[in-house]
Amino acid sequence: MLRLRLAAAAWCSAPRRPLSVSPRRLAAGSALKTPKGTRDHPPAQVALRDRLVGTVVACFKRHGAAAIDTPVLELRETLMGKYGDNSKLIYELQDQGGELLALRYDLTVPFARYLAMNKITNIKRYHIAKVYRRDNPAMTRGRYREFYQCDFDIAGQFDPMIPDAECLKIVHEILSDLQLGDFLIKVNDRRILDGMFAVCGVPDSKFRTICSSVDKLDKVPWEDVKNEMVGEKGLSPEAADRIGEYVQLHGGLDLIEQLLQDPKLSQNKLAKEGLGDMKLLFEYLTLFGITGKISFDLSLARGLDYYTGVIYEAVLLQQQNDHVEDPVSVGSVAGGGRYDGLVGMFDPKGRKVPCVGVSIGIERIFSILEQRVEASEEKIRTTETQVLVASAQKKLLEERLKLISELWDAGIKAEILYKKNPKLLNQLQYCEDTGIPLVAIVGEQELKDGVVKLRVVATREEVNIRRENLIEEIRMRTSQL
Amino acid sequence: MLRLRLAAAAWCSAPRRPLSVSPRRLAAGSALKTPKGTRDHPPAQVALRDRLVGTVVACFKRHGAAAIDTPVLELRETLMGKYGDNSKLIYELQDQGGELLALRYDLTVPFARYLAMNKITNIKRYHIAKVYRRDNPAMTRGRYREFYQCDFDIAGQFDPMIPDAECLKIVHEILSDLQLGDFLIKVNDRRILDGMFAVCGVPDSKFRTICSSVDKLDKVPWEDVKNEMVGEKGLSPEAADRIGEYVQLHGGLDLIEQLLQDPKLSQNKLAKEGLGDMKLLFEYLTLFGITGKISFDLSLARGLDYYTGVIYEAVLLQQQNDHVEDPVSVGSVAGGGRYDGLVGMFDPKGRKVPCVGVSIGIERIFSILEQRVEASEEKIRTTETQVLVASAQKKLLEERLKLISELWDAGIKAEILYKKNPKLLNQLQYCEDTGIPLVAIVGEQELKDGVVKLRVVATREEVNIRRENLIEEIRMRTSQL
Repeated sequence: MLRLRLAAAAWCSAPRRPLSVSPRRLAAGSALKTPKGTRDHPPAQVALRDRLVGTVVACFKRHGAAAIDTPVLELRETLMGKYGDNSKLIYELQDQGGELLALRYDLTVPFARYLAMNKITNIKRYHIAKVYRRDNPAMTRGRYREFYQCDFDIAGQFDPMIPDAECLKIVHEILSDLQLGDFLIKVNDRRILDGMFAVCGVPDSKFRTICSSVDKLDKVPWEDVKNEMVGEKGLSPEAADRIGEYVQLHGGLDLIEQLLQDPKLSQNKLAKEGLGDMKLLFEYLTLFGITGKISFDLSLARGLDYYTGVIYEAVLLQQQNDHVEDPVSVGSVAGGGRYDGLVGMFDPKGRKVPCVGVSIGIERIFSILEQRVEASEEKIRTTETQVLVASAQKKLLEERLKLISELWDAGIKAEILYKKNPKLLNQLQYCEDTGIPLVAIVGEQELKDGVVKLRVVATREEVNIRRENLIEEIRMRTSQL
Repeated sequence: MLRLRLAAAAWCSAPRRPLSVSPRRLAAGSALKTPKGTRDHPPAQVALRDRLVGTVVACFKRHGAAAIDTPVLELRETLMGKYGDNSKLIYELQDQGGELLALRYDLTVPFARYLAMNKITNIKRYHIAKVYRRDNPAMTRGRYREFYQCDFDIAGQFDPMIPDAECLKIVHEILSDLQLGDFLIKVNDRRILDGMFAVCGVPDSKFRTICSSVDKLDKVPWEDVKNEMVGEKGLSPEAADRIGEYVQLHGGLDLIEQLLQDPKLSQNKLAKEGLGDMKLLFEYLTLFGITGKISFDLSLARGLDYYTGVIYEAVLLQQQNDHVEDPVSVGSVAGGGRYDGLVGMFDPKGRKVPCVGVSIGIERIFSILEQRVEASEEKIRTTETQVLVASAQKKLLEERLKLISELWDAGIKAEILYKKNPKLLNQLQYCEDTGIPLVAIVGEQELKDGVVKLRVVATREEVNIRRENLIEEIRMRTSQL
């Protein structure tokens, strides 16, 4: 029984649990909470989110994407200068000696850093992970400081608009698969916007600020936007009016054709390029059969400093009372576009890798699904247990342990109550509470007869199954559920 | 075509992509890297890790566990005072106004915080997520500062040793399922260790420091440990020798029986309690049929400040050359134990919730699997694409897009090359490179005949399939792969 221990170099690999806990209790008055803007996800939320993410990932895989993972921490300098004014929302780590670090703000800048660092010029990847923003939760109802992003991007030098069209197909598939109700995908192009500003007489220096005014058009009426452009931003009323005529346009291939004939826009090189690509895009979308839910919309202006070509945003539509004609947008649930310059910002020689991608707003979609589950009173199971191994009399713990061990080894999902002598009623109640469909009951008579009593919780039906047939019977019955 | 925009309160829900990127390129000389101790996971690593995590999660679900998720950020005060000396390894966030924050160091303290905060007295949960430690990578070969933990815990007041035995069954199942080779699970109990120290004449004040010496026994010979106890820690040589006799013992039920009769240990209340529970545990493990790989080992001393009862650690064994009798431990791959006091540290009234759990060392296991894959030259597919939609001649992009759209809508995983006129050879090469098993080739003749040529990449077999039967054919062929 005595054996001398061999010295092995195992100390680098010990699984890490805390090595030492001083017996200090939480100081009186200390806050027992998660940090502002963060939250725990209890089992029911994780189960619902897993269902949602499963649908999204299935779509990404259907389109041949591979998954990558990058650190939550990045060098501060990697993130700085990539988010404009929003850089102030980046979480920075304390200088504890060594590198200056920050928490990632999105998954796109780390993706670009990854491509440049590894000299990857060609990849189709998805990444679902948490990102961090020191937003003011009071200003951003329903938003969190720690939240999931869910990105799909195609990097590489390809023929125009083929990957772009696939991104829109993906948004269409995901929103259809999730059955969130009617939706609309708005599409525009940064070059069309820039061209439009130019021909409307916006000075180059005001492109960005006027663009951010246009971006508000889905929240406030045109008059307010115009007032901001003229009053706050010093644009001439005439230029504003000209913009106003354009940005209220939306449509499909015919609008693109119309603008390609537009006497002013057709003279602008950028706009012409953008409109040409938009036409190609719509041709591909027609082949995909999805133009019914896609609208070329000149007011869409998202993230302009970042994007270099096509941009898009999907919104859910909610049928209003019958006196309103159009459905009302209830919120954006996906967005993205082409960003051909970002990887080059990381490459020492500025070599560009064209990219186009889409971010699925799973936090927003999660809230919608959560509300729907609450309204329907559907109970989400948080476990997948198929059978509870129960006993009808006392002193049968050993028999329960032997039986459940057989079930586990056969791959059956099974539980027992951790009591020596649980009451049968409590065991059945546990199944009701947690949604376990079957109970395998061992009792003295059953043991003598070489059988197990299998009870169907929903119907209360009970049948004696020979012990050697039990696993087969459970498999058969749970495969039907 | 003109439609006036309705003002809707949608602005809180726009999917978040960076709003603004200033065109600043990476400063000359800037480091294009991930932070020290962190790494990117490229697709092949993520695919392998997903496979590993899938096996572990399947086991956790087989045992009825639910998943929870907690923030990566915790209040600094939540973590402080829980990790002893290791608190200096906690990443702290900069004080940017507001709460003082830190990155989680493990998943166990957040779990205890979660239970206390939500007054949960009963849960079986798993949690797989990244944790952060400012370890010195030079000191910890193969370790990272950001790494995954993979925890299963049972919280609640139950009859003795039933959940504890299930944790060991889980370790046994996972290590068997992963086919990592032979392994051994060492078991001990904090009460037995404390009792042993007491009867050997270790002063109470030296329990912890002597315990940390004992913990080194799997890396250095007994003589070195004794020298440390006597020389550095001031223990009497006699006491050290008495400890030496105990800590070299390991065995099963017969060793437990023997120690229950030990004239000194049997007089110590704590040791007697621990040995009694150890006996019960081994009886349950016998019912589970797993005692063959479990060793009651008095030298196992992990995380004593943290654990209050049973502790365990699983090591992989590697067959040595035939002149060595015993297999040598190549490293710990799982560990855990009972911690009945941690939740009470968070409860304002100190109410305890007994817990027992296990942490699967998936980073260590991942390294082993990765080495194995490299040695075998197995190529891990990073995508699941079933079919490439290819064209045999030029000008068939439209036909490819129509066909792939049908396939996607039918749930088939399909790709095309993003070129207007890709060469057939390049398309076939892409399948070889990425492991796509089938090619659906559209050509002019095939279009006329209403067929698609389906090519099996591995065998180069080609058959014409009627267009309306293609989806069925692909499903049939890929279900066999």
